[in-house]
Amino acid sequence: MKKVVLVYSGGMDSSVLLYDLIHQGYQVSTFSIFYGQKHQKELAVAKKFASLLSLQHKLADISNLSDIFGNTSLVANHCEIPDGHYEEESMKETVVPNRNMIFLSLATAWAISIGSNKIAYAAHSGDHAIYPDCRNEFADAMNEAIQLCDWNSVSLVRPFVGLSKAEIVRKGVELEVPLEQTWSCYKGLDVHCGQCGTCIERREAFYLAGVEDKTKYSSSAPSLKFLVANNWRV
Amino acid sequence: MKKVVLVYSGGMDSSVLLYDLIHQGYQVSTFSIFYGQKHQKELAVAKKFASLLSLQHKLADISNLSDIFGNTSLVANHCEIPDGHYEEESMKETVVPNRNMIFLSLATAWAISIGSNKIAYAAHSGDHAIYPDCRNEFADAMNEAIQLCDWNSVSLVRPFVGLSKAEIVRKGVELEVPLEQTWSCYKGLDVHCGQCGTCIERREAFYLAGVEDKTKYSSSAPSLKFLVANNWRV
Repeated sequence: MKKVVLVYSGGMDSSVLLYDLIHQGYQVSTFSIFYGQKHQKELAVAKKFASLLSLQHKLADISNLSDIFGNTSLVANHCEIPDGHYEEESMKETVVPNRNMIFLSLATAWAISIGSNKIAYAAHSGDHAIYPDCRNEFADAMNEAIQLCDWNSVSLVRPFVGLSKAEIVRKGVELEVPLEQTWSCYKGLDVHCGQCGTCIERREAFYLAGVEDKTKYSSSAPSLKFLVANNWRV
Repeated sequence: MKKVVLVYSGGMDSSVLLYDLIHQGYQVSTFSIFYGQKHQKELAVAKKFASLLSLQHKLADISNLSDIFGNTSLVANHCEIPDGHYEEESMKETVVPNRNMIFLSLATAWAISIGSNKIAYAAHSGDHAIYPDCRNEFADAMNEAIQLCDWNSVSLVRPFVGLSKAEIVRKGVELEVPLEQTWSCYKGLDVHCGQCGTCIERREAFYLAGVEDKTKYSSSAPSLKFLVANNWRV
């Protein structure tokens, strides 16, 4: 059976990719990382999906290393998660230095150990705006390095690289993914805040896909009507 | 001042590189990793050298992840460190899956956080025989990926890539590195065992360099004369 290790955050994109890979006949093992992110709620979601689908799941805890990441607001307690659209300057505070390389390097080690020759992650076409390590060129170089890191052939695949987040929502509907159960919000409260960068991106994706968003948002979140009227600026 | 983060094991190669970088006028920050290796003694050596030279030093502890590395004998308690020359088949047990990519990805994150735009490691020309992630092509791909992982330019340097281990010993002598205080042995006992792969490689390097080896080896280690007569097979 074709085997793949999926870097799995419990978010919408990687959850849809998970269902897509299973649909394609892969035996998927899911790999999640706790790096000290305030929204560790996503990890519980990841575990829940893996358990629901009876998949081998591994959580790598590198939260003790959070000081090597400096002052990113996703991790550092003294930095607040900014509200607003991903395109805004303030969102750069959410960049975690070299996060993707660290995730991929650990996932690759595990893939080699369990005899899986593919590593997948859910990079998509809207990803690279503020994150340097979401660029195609970065992923291409990582794929090169991953292919050379073992004597056996291992490779990195990004099946969603040509899709927008709205297209991922549509694919999720086709594959009957319970999208409302996936977790995006950086704040990691009881429900999605509805106004941080990743919540705005999520809401916009449902809107652009023409799909009803059943996610539960905080009662203080701006309304969809307000967001549309304000071009997704909060 | 030119800044560099050195991936620093406390071994001979990276210790010589440390002195070499300082000699070249770099402000060096040293980065060591505890990945569950039995020879964690090397980490105490790394810390001692960093302290001696008044350098910023960081130890990243990922030993809780040792299960993602599978059955490598460097980590797994039920696997014994094999004796013998690196070229022997049994040495493959000492391969830690994707170790270099993990080390470099973490060191790069720290380098970005502390505003250093160079990451150095002591890969040398004799390194690649059994370790896939010591190949030049691997390091070239990693350099590509590292250059793209941040908006600022960060790069990977391997100043010793053209040197043999014997040449590193000679350089160490020139730079007055206390070579006998560096740590290589995979077994991590009180003194170097003198017969595991990395001890044999160390002893051979001193011999080929024509430099007296002041390292203290176990009394049960094979003699230099025996090793030379047996072509470095134990």
